[in-house]
Amino acid sequence: MVEKVLERVDGELDRSIDRLFDLLRIASISTDPAYKDDCRAAARWCADALAEIGFEASLRDTEGHPMVVGHAGRGQPGPHVLFYGHYDVQPPDPLELWETPPFEPRRAKSADGRDIIVARGASDDKGQLMTFLEAARAFGEVQGEIPLPVTVLLEGEEECGSRSLEPFLAANADELKADVALVCDTAMWDAETPAITSMLRGLLLEEVIVTAASRDLHSGMFGGPALNAIHMLALIVAGLHGEGGRVMVPGFYDGVGELPDEVRAQWDGLGFDEAKFLADIGLRAAAGEADRGVLEKLWSRPTCDVNGIIGGYTGEGSKTVIPAKASAKFSFRLVGDQDPVKMAENFRAFVRARLPDHCTAEFIRHGGDRAISFSLTGPCFEAARKGLADEFGRDAALIGCGGSIPIVGAFKRRLGMDSLLVGFALDDDRIHSPNEKYNLSSFRHGIRSWVRILDALKAIGRT
Amino acid sequence: MVEKVLERVDGELDRSIDRLFDLLRIASISTDPAYKDDCRAAARWCADALAEIGFEASLRDTEGHPMVVGHAGRGQPGPHVLFYGHYDVQPPDPLELWETPPFEPRRAKSADGRDIIVARGASDDKGQLMTFLEAARAFGEVQGEIPLPVTVLLEGEEECGSRSLEPFLAANADELKADVALVCDTAMWDAETPAITSMLRGLLLEEVIVTAASRDLHSGMFGGPALNAIHMLALIVAGLHGEGGRVMVPGFYDGVGELPDEVRAQWDGLGFDEAKFLADIGLRAAAGEADRGVLEKLWSRPTCDVNGIIGGYTGEGSKTVIPAKASAKFSFRLVGDQDPVKMAENFRAFVRARLPDHCTAEFIRHGGDRAISFSLTGPCFEAARKGLADEFGRDAALIGCGGSIPIVGAFKRRLGMDSLLVGFALDDDRIHSPNEKYNLSSFRHGIRSWVRILDALKAIGRT
Repeated sequence: MVEKVLERVDGELDRSIDRLFDLLRIASISTDPAYKDDCRAAARWCADALAEIGFEASLRDTEGHPMVVGHAGRGQPGPHVLFYGHYDVQPPDPLELWETPPFEPRRAKSADGRDIIVARGASDDKGQLMTFLEAARAFGEVQGEIPLPVTVLLEGEEECGSRSLEPFLAANADELKADVALVCDTAMWDAETPAITSMLRGLLLEEVIVTAASRDLHSGMFGGPALNAIHMLALIVAGLHGEGGRVMVPGFYDGVGELPDEVRAQWDGLGFDEAKFLADIGLRAAAGEADRGVLEKLWSRPTCDVNGIIGGYTGEGSKTVIPAKASAKFSFRLVGDQDPVKMAENFRAFVRARLPDHCTAEFIRHGGDRAISFSLTGPCFEAARKGLADEFGRDAALIGCGGSIPIVGAFKRRLGMDSLLVGFALDDDRIHSPNEKYNLSSFRHGIRSWVRILDALKAIGRT
Repeated sequence: MVEKVLERVDGELDRSIDRLFDLLRIASISTDPAYKDDCRAAARWCADALAEIGFEASLRDTEGHPMVVGHAGRGQPGPHVLFYGHYDVQPPDPLELWETPPFEPRRAKSADGRDIIVARGASDDKGQLMTFLEAARAFGEVQGEIPLPVTVLLEGEEECGSRSLEPFLAANADELKADVALVCDTAMWDAETPAITSMLRGLLLEEVIVTAASRDLHSGMFGGPALNAIHMLALIVAGLHGEGGRVMVPGFYDGVGELPDEVRAQWDGLGFDEAKFLADIGLRAAAGEADRGVLEKLWSRPTCDVNGIIGGYTGEGSKTVIPAKASAKFSFRLVGDQDPVKMAENFRAFVRARLPDHCTAEFIRHGGDRAISFSLTGPCFEAARKGLADEFGRDAALIGCGGSIPIVGAFKRRLGMDSLLVGFALDDDRIHSPNEKYNLSSFRHGIRSWVRILDALKAIGRT
């Protein structure tokens, strides 16, 4: 029976791609208020797509961008699953590095000869969320209805801190609570090996604005005795990492545990190629903690990165100015029991301690979430494993993820619901970077994997 | 006889201000190619103004912005003087800090109750160059002609490295060579005390672009092992200054001498108020070399400042990116025999030495000039002293200047010509900063001082 649905997926693939392109054309950049209407348009597009395939779908307003909620398969046997994805995307800057405009999706060949789809959001997360919508569509077209109760929740603030998420879950708990959440925002182990993600790092986002003198100064007239805001900020950034790549914020490593031996063994068995990983991004040596491997640093060690800096004159040519202000954006990846609230306090104290008392620092918090990890047992987990193994002809790797997916913590906290993290992105998808892409095979196997997983979940019966 | 000219100046002052406002309305930002036409328009305006007051004036094309050259008073007795000013201005950024648009000049009252003119270029250098043009105009209107041979040279690249200057001087040496250059681009000691500047710091401008990874990376997917370009650049900026505020570039202090005792004594006698100087710019302690006084740091010590920095995401909100590139603009103020060519080499080596070998640094040179100092003797110097003392009722202070005026070195090198640096700016003019202003009294006394100085120069007779 599932074979017919899978055939339908393959037969309809070009039309599935067309629909994905429609969604990719909408510049739903959630962090920038200038794109508010585009975010709403993307939400509307998703709601319409859900309605078209038989979901009872609606846009739900929030203080930020709207949520999309859809329901189908009520009364069907099998566990009730909630699928989560996000329709918002990262800003495309730096624009000049895109080979073609970021919101004009195109098919192309990658350097290694694979078919790819290029656009902002192709992988993160529009391509991924469309794998599920297209699987649901194929079920509807072949079987008349999706074979188990499904709720779809699509968010529009994943790339800017997910501020509306917890209030929305709290206010709609009864409607949204399901037996398990299927979250599609993660990667495969490699192009041939599917993966289930079992650990996610947390995230703290902080912006700092340093003020030195009361105004910008001429470097001839004031250079020497005048304090330079960029210099102050550079001292802070440079001081964040100490010997051996350790982060110097006091208390930074509170709550960071060592990896259990069995997890370390499983990761060691993945055959991760550190040199290739680095070479792929143009590097020959790893940054960060000197005594840790690359995979461990990515999945289970905390970080502190500066994501943006600006101060003084940044146009063409030169300007002999001593800037009064300079600002930087920081992100902290958290693991274990690191507490984002405490971390923010420690970071702010660290910054203030490095400024003379006639300098000031302002702080802006852009969001924070703890790290999370999942149990790897139970019928839903087994259904996902089986669906992926059947589709790819090999077992899914059980991996960590360096990124943060705030929804997963919120599902647990607000709805007492566990998540299954299954995604089809690849490490070379250039998500958040120019020329983001999604492999056509990720898209196709993704759709087919959801068909198989839904089929396997249905077989569980109501839990 | 000169009294009639001075009366004319005062009677015509409102019209002089109107003319200055016309010039201030032209956004002649030389460093930004987008304002090329505005620079030409400002040059054209100056040439027309010179023609109107009896100069044989023309625009001279260069590889950059045009020069304006005018001649008058040929055949008159007295030394031949060349007046220099510049019609280009600094970019007005940050625009949002201007109380009114930078190129819409207005009269206002300062906080301390003085009449001021507010606009980009009001002081640096349009207001200053207009003091001379208005003095020449008054002579013409009262006496029919300027009383000695005068050449006017107005440059349009002073704020962006003066690249065309030396070739232009070399190509037009016969036409431009005079007995002395009068350069009006410096400040008074205070609002009541005129000054002649006898030392100028040199200037080296370098831009650095650091590249780490081959593309921007997601801080979740790559954070930990991935090198961050902003972090690399921050380490360089932070490492430029060491203990006691000394600049750590190897060889940086080569050619820096100690101040002669008599100069130090004269400066000490000026009664400079360090605390007030710092308080005026919102600071309570001086940066830079710990063992040097503020005036010494400003006039006779070298500096290294970062004038601009940018990297990663700098828009609203946050972006969890590890930037591949980051860049910064640096200015070095030079003194004594410091060599800008050698300095640039040393700086570049310093930067490269701080980067891992899989990081690259690109460099852009935006100009460089040695420091310069003048002899304080001779009839022209005495004429300037007398003119200023007569106008202000007190002796001119003989001061240093932390800024750089590349023309002065070029005049010496190319034309064997000494310069007299007399200007009427004030330290609180906010040149290069938002809300730049020029005191109305600077403008009026400036015009009247040039009338007196030209009159005193005429009395010398042909040298």
